[in-house]
Amino acid sequence: MRILILGAAGMIGRKLCAKLAADGAIGGRAIDEARLVDVAAPPQPAGARFAALCAAVDLASELAAAELVAERPDVVFHLAAVVSGEAESNFDKGYAVNLDATRRLFEAIRRERARSGGAYRPRLVFASSIAVFGAPCPETIDDDFLVAPLTSYGVQKAMVELLLADYSRRGIIDGVALRLPTVVVRPGAPNRAASGFFSSIIREPLAGREAILPVADATRLWCASPRAAASFFVHAAALDLERLGPRRSLTMPGVSVTVAEQVEALRRVGGEAAVRLIRRQADESIADIVAGWPGRFDARRARTLGFVAETSFDEIVRVYLEDDHVAAVA
Amino acid sequence: MRILILGAAGMIGRKLCAKLAADGAIGGRAIDEARLVDVAAPPQPAGARFAALCAAVDLASELAAAELVAERPDVVFHLAAVVSGEAESNFDKGYAVNLDATRRLFEAIRRERARSGGAYRPRLVFASSIAVFGAPCPETIDDDFLVAPLTSYGVQKAMVELLLADYSRRGIIDGVALRLPTVVVRPGAPNRAASGFFSSIIREPLAGREAILPVADATRLWCASPRAAASFFVHAAALDLERLGPRRSLTMPGVSVTVAEQVEALRRVGGEAAVRLIRRQADESIADIVAGWPGRFDARRARTLGFVAETSFDEIVRVYLEDDHVAAVA
Repeated sequence: MRILILGAAGMIGRKLCAKLAADGAIGGRAIDEARLVDVAAPPQPAGARFAALCAAVDLASELAAAELVAERPDVVFHLAAVVSGEAESNFDKGYAVNLDATRRLFEAIRRERARSGGAYRPRLVFASSIAVFGAPCPETIDDDFLVAPLTSYGVQKAMVELLLADYSRRGIIDGVALRLPTVVVRPGAPNRAASGFFSSIIREPLAGREAILPVADATRLWCASPRAAASFFVHAAALDLERLGPRRSLTMPGVSVTVAEQVEALRRVGGEAAVRLIRRQADESIADIVAGWPGRFDARRARTLGFVAETSFDEIVRVYLEDDHVAAVA
Repeated sequence: MRILILGAAGMIGRKLCAKLAADGAIGGRAIDEARLVDVAAPPQPAGARFAALCAAVDLASELAAAELVAERPDVVFHLAAVVSGEAESNFDKGYAVNLDATRRLFEAIRRERARSGGAYRPRLVFASSIAVFGAPCPETIDDDFLVAPLTSYGVQKAMVELLLADYSRRGIIDGVALRLPTVVVRPGAPNRAASGFFSSIIREPLAGREAILPVADATRLWCASPRAAASFFVHAAALDLERLGPRRSLTMPGVSVTVAEQVEALRRVGGEAAVRLIRRQADESIADIVAGWPGRFDARRARTLGFVAETSFDEIVRVYLEDDHVAAVA
C-alpha cells in the first residue's frame, strides 16, 4: 500500500513515521511506498523497508494537494497544522492552513476520485484536537457533548471535522478525525502551542534545566504520550469505519491529571532537585486559552473501537524516559 | 439606524421586511434606511416609513459583500441560502453560497472595521437551522447536545455557526445564529427545501388543491410559523448578546408535532374534504433527509432570552389563516 503523511516533520508526525517504519505494515497490509511531506523536508525514517520520499511542500499553495493526491495514496495521514498559539495570533494564517488547505486536499481527492471513475476513495486520518471543546463544560465530557471551541484553532479543527464527515458521507473519502489529547511529554524544543509548558515542566527539569509554569497548579489536563498518539493514527488507518456511522470524529482516550499531580509525578522520578527547577511565572494569555480546555473525558466510543492510551501520568513519564529522555540530556 | 437584509426576497425575508416596515424600529431605535437584497430584487415593503433600497445582488460574486458592507449597516440580517434539497444535489453551489459567500461577508466586515479604526462592529443575525443536528438524537435535544448534521446544508450552517462565534469572540462582529425550526405553514409555491411538504399538506388542501405527503405519518417535526420566524430575527437584532457568552448559536423555540397531528389539525379547520386532498406518495430521498432531523427540543436558552413561538400546531394553522390564506386561495 501507498501512504501519504502531511505534517510528517512535526513531533507526532515523526513518531508516526518511526512507528510505521518499525511496523512495515498497517493492519496487515505491507507499506510499499510512503510520501512524507511538511513545510520543511521531514527526515528519512530510520530502518524503513519501504521507499520513503521526503519533501518540503507548502500545503497553502494551490497545486500542492493535487500533486500529492495524483499518486492515489491508500491512506492519507493529515497532521499538518498551524498550532493553537500561532492560529490565535495570526488569524489569516490559521484559517489559510488549518481550514483552506485541508479543504483543498479534500477537493483534490474528489477530483482524483472523479478521474478514477469513482474507484479512488482513500482512508483519511485527520489530527483534530480536544480544543474543539470549550467552557462551560461538565466535569466529564461524553461523546454527545456540544462542540464549542474558544480559540480560532479549535474553530478550524471543528470546521474540518464537519467537512470530513460530509465528504465521508458522500463517499469521497473514508475519513476519521481523531481529537487528540494534549500530547505530553513532548521531546525537543518547545513549539508555539499554548500547551507546550505541560511538557516542558517534566522534560526540562529531568534534563537539569529550568522550566516555566505559566498557569495555576489546579489546572487540569487531558493528556496522552507521543507514543500513544502515534498508535491512534495507525489504529485509525486500519479500522472498519463503517462502525462509526455518520459521526466521524472521535475523542481519543487519555489521562486526566492536574499540574500539581504532574509535579508529584516529576518528584517521584527526579526528586526535589527536579521540582525546584520549575519556576512559576503567570502568563494570562496562556492561562486564558488553557482554562477553556476541558480536563476530563469519557472517551467511550474510541475505547470501544480499540483505541488505547496510558492509564496514569506516571506511565506517561515512563514512556518519555524510554522513548525520548536520552536525546533530551544528550 | 441602517439595516441590511440578505435574502430579503425569500419567504422569511419578506415576512421580516414586512414586520420591520410595520414596526419602523428595532429595539426602540428608528430604522432610517434599509438595503434589501437577494439574487432577484426583493419587492418594496408596503407601508415602510424608511427608505428601502431593493437590489438584485449575487453574494457569490467577489465584490458584492464589500459593496454592501461599505455603507456600514448597524444590523445585518443574513438569510440568504441555497436550501437543503439543492445543497444536497448541488455540492459546489451549496458550499459556494452557504459557506464561502458568508465567510466573504464576515471578511468584508472585518476590512470595513479596520477602515473605521475599530469603531465598526455590526450586529449580525444569521439564519441557521435545526438541520445542524442529526440522528441518533435523544428524544429531546437540549442546548448542550452535539451538532452532527447529516446533510451538506446542515454542515454548511454548522460551519458558519463556528465562524460566527470566532468572529464575534474576536470583536469583528456582534453575531448570533438562530437555528430555525422548520417554518410552516409556508405561503406561496413550494421551494426546493426537502421540508416543503410539511407546509403544502396544510396550505394546498385549505385552498382546495391536492398535496403530496412523501413521508410516514409518524414523522415528527419541530416547527414555528413564518410570523414567529420573523419575530425571532427582530428580537435577536435588539438583544444584549453579552448575555450569551461565547456560544452564539441559539436553537429557537417551536412546536413538536407529528405529520398525523398535522393532519388532525387540518381536519379541525378544513374538515374531511381537506384531509382527502392529501395524497400519500413515498419519496425515499426526502424521507431519508427528514428522518435525520430531530423533532423535539428543549430550547431553554432562547426562551430565557425572550424568544417566543407558537405553543400548538392549531395556533400555527391559525396564524397561517390570518396572515397568508387569503393570498393562497386568490
